[in-house]
Amino acid sequence: MTEQQPEILDRVDRIVADHVDTVVDDYERSRTYPLALVQQLCALGLPALVTGRTDLPQPTVLFCRAIERLAAAWLALAESVHLQTLATCALARHGTADLRTELLPGMQEARLIAANCMSEPGAGSDLSLIGTTAERHDDGYRINGVKAWVGHAGVADLLNVYARTGGGGLGGLTCFLVDADAPGVCIQPPEDKMGVRALPTARIVFTDVDVPASRILGRVNRGMIVAHSFFTQGRLGVAACAVGLASAALRYATKHARTRSQFGANLMNFQGVSFMLADMSIKIEASRQLLHRACREVDSGGSQTELLAAQAKVFATDTAMEVTTNAVQVLGARGYTGTEPVERWMREAKLLQIIEGTNQIQRVAIASRL
Amino acid sequence: MTEQQPEILDRVDRIVADHVDTVVDDYERSRTYPLALVQQLCALGLPALVTGRTDLPQPTVLFCRAIERLAAAWLALAESVHLQTLATCALARHGTADLRTELLPGMQEARLIAANCMSEPGAGSDLSLIGTTAERHDDGYRINGVKAWVGHAGVADLLNVYARTGGGGLGGLTCFLVDADAPGVCIQPPEDKMGVRALPTARIVFTDVDVPASRILGRVNRGMIVAHSFFTQGRLGVAACAVGLASAALRYATKHARTRSQFGANLMNFQGVSFMLADMSIKIEASRQLLHRACREVDSGGSQTELLAAQAKVFATDTAMEVTTNAVQVLGARGYTGTEPVERWMREAKLLQIIEGTNQIQRVAIASRL
Amino acid sequence: MTEQQPEILDRVDRIVADHVDTVVDDYERSRTYPLALVQQLCALGLPALVTGRTDLPQPTVLFCRAIERLAAAWLALAESVHLQTLATCALARHGTADLRTELLPGMQEARLIAANCMSEPGAGSDLSLIGTTAERHDDGYRINGVKAWVGHAGVADLLNVYARTGGGGLGGLTCFLVDADAPGVCIQPPEDKMGVRALPTARIVFTDVDVPASRILGRVNRGMIVAHSFFTQGRLGVAACAVGLASAALRYATKHARTRSQFGANLMNFQGVSFMLADMSIKIEASRQLLHRACREVDSGGSQTELLAAQAKVFATDTAMEVTTNAVQVLGARGYTGTEPVERWMREAKLLQIIEGTNQIQRVAIASRL
Amino acid sequence: MTEQQPEILDRVDRIVADHVDTVVDDYERSRTYPLALVQQLCALGLPALVTGRTDLPQPTVLFCRAIERLAAAWLALAESVHLQTLATCALARHGTADLRTELLPGMQEARLIAANCMSEPGAGSDLSLIGTTAERHDDGYRINGVKAWVGHAGVADLLNVYARTGGGGLGGLTCFLVDADAPGVCIQPPEDKMGVRALPTARIVFTDVDVPASRILGRVNRGMIVAHSFFTQGRLGVAACAVGLASAALRYATKHARTRSQFGANLMNFQGVSFMLADMSIKIEASRQLLHRACREVDSGGSQTELLAAQAKVFATDTAMEVTTNAVQVLGARGYTGTEPVERWMREAKLLQIIEGTNQIQRVAIASRL
Repeated sequence: MTEQQPEILDRVDRIVADHVDTVVDDYERSRTYPLALVQQLCALGLPALVTGRTDLPQPTVLFCRAIERLAAAWLALAESVHLQTLATCALARHGTADLRTELLPGMQEARLIAANCMSEPGAGSDLSLIGTTAERHDDGYRINGVKAWVGHAGVADLLNVYARTGGGGLGGLTCFLVDADAPGVCIQPPEDKMGVRALPTARIVFTDVDVPASRILGRVNRGMIVAHSFFTQGRLGVAACAVGLASAALRYATKHARTRSQFGANLMNFQGVSFMLADMSIKIEASRQLLHRACREVDSGGSQTELLAAQAKVFATDTAMEVTTNAVQVLGARGYTGTEPVERWMREAKLLQIIEGTNQIQRVAIASRL
Repeated sequence: MTEQQPEILDRVDRIVADHVDTVVDDYERSRTYPLALVQQLCALGLPALVTGRTDLPQPTVLFCRAIERLAAAWLALAESVHLQTLATCALARHGTADLRTELLPGMQEARLIAANCMSEPGAGSDLSLIGTTAERHDDGYRINGVKAWVGHAGVADLLNVYARTGGGGLGGLTCFLVDADAPGVCIQPPEDKMGVRALPTARIVFTDVDVPASRILGRVNRGMIVAHSFFTQGRLGVAACAVGLASAALRYATKHARTRSQFGANLMNFQGVSFMLADMSIKIEASRQLLHRACREVDSGGSQTELLAAQAKVFATDTAMEVTTNAVQVLGARGYTGTEPVERWMREAKLLQIIEGTNQIQRVAIASRL
Repeated sequence: MTEQQPEILDRVDRIVADHVDTVVDDYERSRTYPLALVQQLCALGLPALVTGRTDLPQPTVLFCRAIERLAAAWLALAESVHLQTLATCALARHGTADLRTELLPGMQEARLIAANCMSEPGAGSDLSLIGTTAERHDDGYRINGVKAWVGHAGVADLLNVYARTGGGGLGGLTCFLVDADAPGVCIQPPEDKMGVRALPTARIVFTDVDVPASRILGRVNRGMIVAHSFFTQGRLGVAACAVGLASAALRYATKHARTRSQFGANLMNFQGVSFMLADMSIKIEASRQLLHRACREVDSGGSQTELLAAQAKVFATDTAMEVTTNAVQVLGARGYTGTEPVERWMREAKLLQIIEGTNQIQRVAIASRL
Repeated sequence: MTEQQPEILDRVDRIVADHVDTVVDDYERSRTYPLALVQQLCALGLPALVTGRTDLPQPTVLFCRAIERLAAAWLALAESVHLQTLATCALARHGTADLRTELLPGMQEARLIAANCMSEPGAGSDLSLIGTTAERHDDGYRINGVKAWVGHAGVADLLNVYARTGGGGLGGLTCFLVDADAPGVCIQPPEDKMGVRALPTARIVFTDVDVPASRILGRVNRGMIVAHSFFTQGRLGVAACAVGLASAALRYATKHARTRSQFGANLMNFQGVSFMLADMSIKIEASRQLLHRACREVDSGGSQTELLAAQAKVFATDTAMEVTTNAVQVLGARGYTGTEPVERWMREAKLLQIIEGTNQIQRVAIASRL
């Protein structure tokens, strides 16, 4: 680790301490998107770490360590920085020089909020079923279709839309960078999610949305190459969120067990509780080390990135689900109420087992690489 | 099973089909207590099954089968009928003849809603720490203290209050049947629970609440005997809730897997999903059989009731937590939103691992009986 | 339960106490088949309970309760009685009147030891791949092929051989009752199994083995109907073995924990140990109740027998594997040596997850019935 | 990693390929200790890595990577090199200059086999109960007592004996370096272990064994300081054994699943099998990364060594137990026999959950450090 690495993490910590902890509950309850905080964090250079910055060693490790810290404070914030980073990857790696000059700095610093639009109501993880079409006409393309489960919907300025330009299957998709306020783009009301409510997720309906050919990322009918360019990063970011969330839950439950008395003794003196905490700590640390290993593989350009990232995603998110559920248990009835953060963490953890490829899809990917 | 048994279960099923399914979401969202439904169900004789009715064989089995069905439709409703039954046990088994004549029919039929007031802010599962006091004076007793986590708080007419009349420890407690509208009884705002929101749970503050000696259930300083008289029933009812909840989640997830296509095949064709469902079904059926075994032990007056009830409580509620979490997974992103009931079931399931003695407390009870 | 039920179980208990416990270690070490004990137990009427006896209520429940007790003492013995019962089912349900008159009593009482020959080296659970052939000739059939993993190989007098008489797949198989000492039957040396060594398992090579048509069980090309007639019983018997084995391990580990001191306290006082034992007890009791439920379904002719039997098989055997592994842990280093029975139980438990359809095959069967 | 690191690992690999694989089964069956192989491996400098060698970076990481490779081939061999290393630590870190000059090279290269003698029949993990005494007399000390579960018993030349020289508890113990052929040292027959049979483990009875004061390691009554100096290393070595063992089992089961057909498809095509393998791979890789993290903490002199080592020990060994049990399952009936190595691996894995502090003791250590 170089000296610079602690610096960016220190700054993240300072923002969390000064501005995040006090607003989480209000923002989550009122479902308010924390735009200013996302911009403040992205301005530190977080998305840039994985979309071009080359002055720091192990940028992926550093990015994930930052996401861990954010998720320990507020998952919606960590997840938004992560989504912004993912949505920026496509431009950074596949955009034309002109597009990059025009938009990359704004996206890296979240002055322009971006969103990936991939899933559809009838096509969850199976992108070969994408039905959104982009028809060629004189001035460019005309997009029609419905995208589902779009994170940042309603707050995004730019949308990476994967639409069908060629035949069926995965080979006929193209990625378009669409303005969110273009005519014909209609954002639906946000989904009523179990958690992570401050981060809006919604369907977006595209009706005859015109987009110039210059806004294509990558090549026509080669949209899957664009998508693949951030799948691994998507897994790592979610795993980092999981490690952070689980760490917060363990810390909180341990503190409770150390201060709460029952049956004449400290709760920590009961192995029925302390062994639970020990097991939680073991899985969290193992998750973290597996994640960092996967990040180093990315940073060193190794060949095992997809396998390791998928393994880290499954293990860290399954761990987060188990750990947060048990953290509520350690707090007992109190833990079941909104006066304690553990119930929020448990609701949030469930999301992570599902997004960026469900843990079942990940296992398919892992098994194919054994 | 006699002919009459299906009849009462049929009636439960009819009420569920006709009146419950349509209101659950609204009531849960608006946190409205379903008084009329509770009364309709109790009028069928459900609380009476375990508080005095002797004309049916295996009444405990029958009661739990009814609770299972209710919980499959709406946990708040099942839990309320169960709480009403528990709160009625004390009167039915330890009330004077006069009190029973006056109040038992009303409580059995839920014309009078009742609540147990045991836990306190500083004393969760450890009742020896109860600090609420009942001081003897000329006309009876004067109660002061704070009770926490009282189910039915705010809707109950009658409160079973456990207060200290003698020395410290478990030996100095007495159970009083207190009018909820007596001067000095102050109901706090309901807790903001993760789930089961239609059933209010709150603190109640007792300030110089006078209660006549005739309202003592059981004997002075023998309150723990009263409490023990429904501990086993409390475990069985929660286990029944868990079995019902888990069954509903399995049914729903299986139906989804049978109708949803992905990657060119029915979801059920992927063993990654179907084995999950198979494992869910195995644990649910094992939970149900263990619960029914415990109920038969109660009905036949066997000596293993406490062990079996504790085993059933732990296993059924751990199963419900796992099954509902996996049911959300089977539905994927959709399952994470309020448009599907599985996210509600997952939030509800967590409560069951905590109430009527946390699963850790149950394991202590089990180990001591091996 | 009728009065007669305890009687047969009492007799089983008496044989175990008087004759089994003292010989287990010697017989297992020297891989000696306990023929006299198997005959003594079968003479009590155990195989008859599921192959024809009609004077006792709930015969399947009773049979499985007997197997539980035997397995708690010695799995090889329980498994042998169970195998003998399975191998008798085919004759009892599908044999001609003449064959039944000639052989059924001898098989039911184990004067004639019988064995099922189904699996083959290249066809494990997939019976459609059976390659053993039975060619029609003047006087009957001529069998050629290799059967693998035959329990009772080397001690059996009679072999139920499934051979191909028709086309490929499951539709061309026929079941023949072959004398084990017929010319051309060659028993290979027993497999070197991890456990259950007193019960020999081996390949059998059939080279031009002649068998008359009168020795066909069921009808030509309808061998799968014969096989299916004891699949459910096979699952139940293995589940009963698992429940018995796990119960013995729990009992032994609990006794150890109650008598062993460490760090100045009884081992049972450490929740790290006592919660393990509590969890073992919960799963065992749940297994037992699920198994008995499945048995009652068989005895009452219900429609859920296959589903329930498969659920019981998976759950009971997975439980036995976990429980026996943990029982070794409770005993620590001592548990890892042959001076304690727990290491034998752990080696034995593994077999049960595999035989009579692996637990993976069972899950396929379960999922298809949800 | 420096260039030298691959070199020592390459040499380990070469010894394994040339000399180990062919002898494992014979040596395990005949319980023959592989002295020449242990000496060959130690001569490469393995024990020296953690007992003094300073020319290589990250020596603890390197040592554990070597142990992983050995355990993947033969646990008894890996465990013996590990035991030799542990027994050498006491001398290397606490021996006088004279003793080190005389004995250290021989122990590092295994020309002198060494053994730790700590546990006693009545004192397992609780060293405060050690009853072996060392009485002061003119010429030194006279040792009496019984040590249990001594690895290398019967093949060791030197014994590190922990005996009571002061009062009760942990504060009165002293470590003596005793010649194994000293008069009064009586090695009992080896324990009949479930696995790892080529490595003898036995009780040793000490009857009036005289040892000069010059053979004390560390200081009188400060034996626990000596013992503590290799506790962390003990955990790491066992964790490395577990990672190696589990990796071998995964590799073998995956190869089987890739080549075995069933129901018309490759076994790997069934998610019921491939998800099992994916989950095995996830836990193994997480174990490995957690272990390496702990090793790096040791190598960098960090403050979290005990916590991380205990976490790695629990997680890696629980993983090895689960993975080897599932590897047998993937192979089915074949896996249950001695013709396949998986049954041996499963028997071996159990040992690792018990030695160098049971996984329960480790959880106590972990919880106290949270």
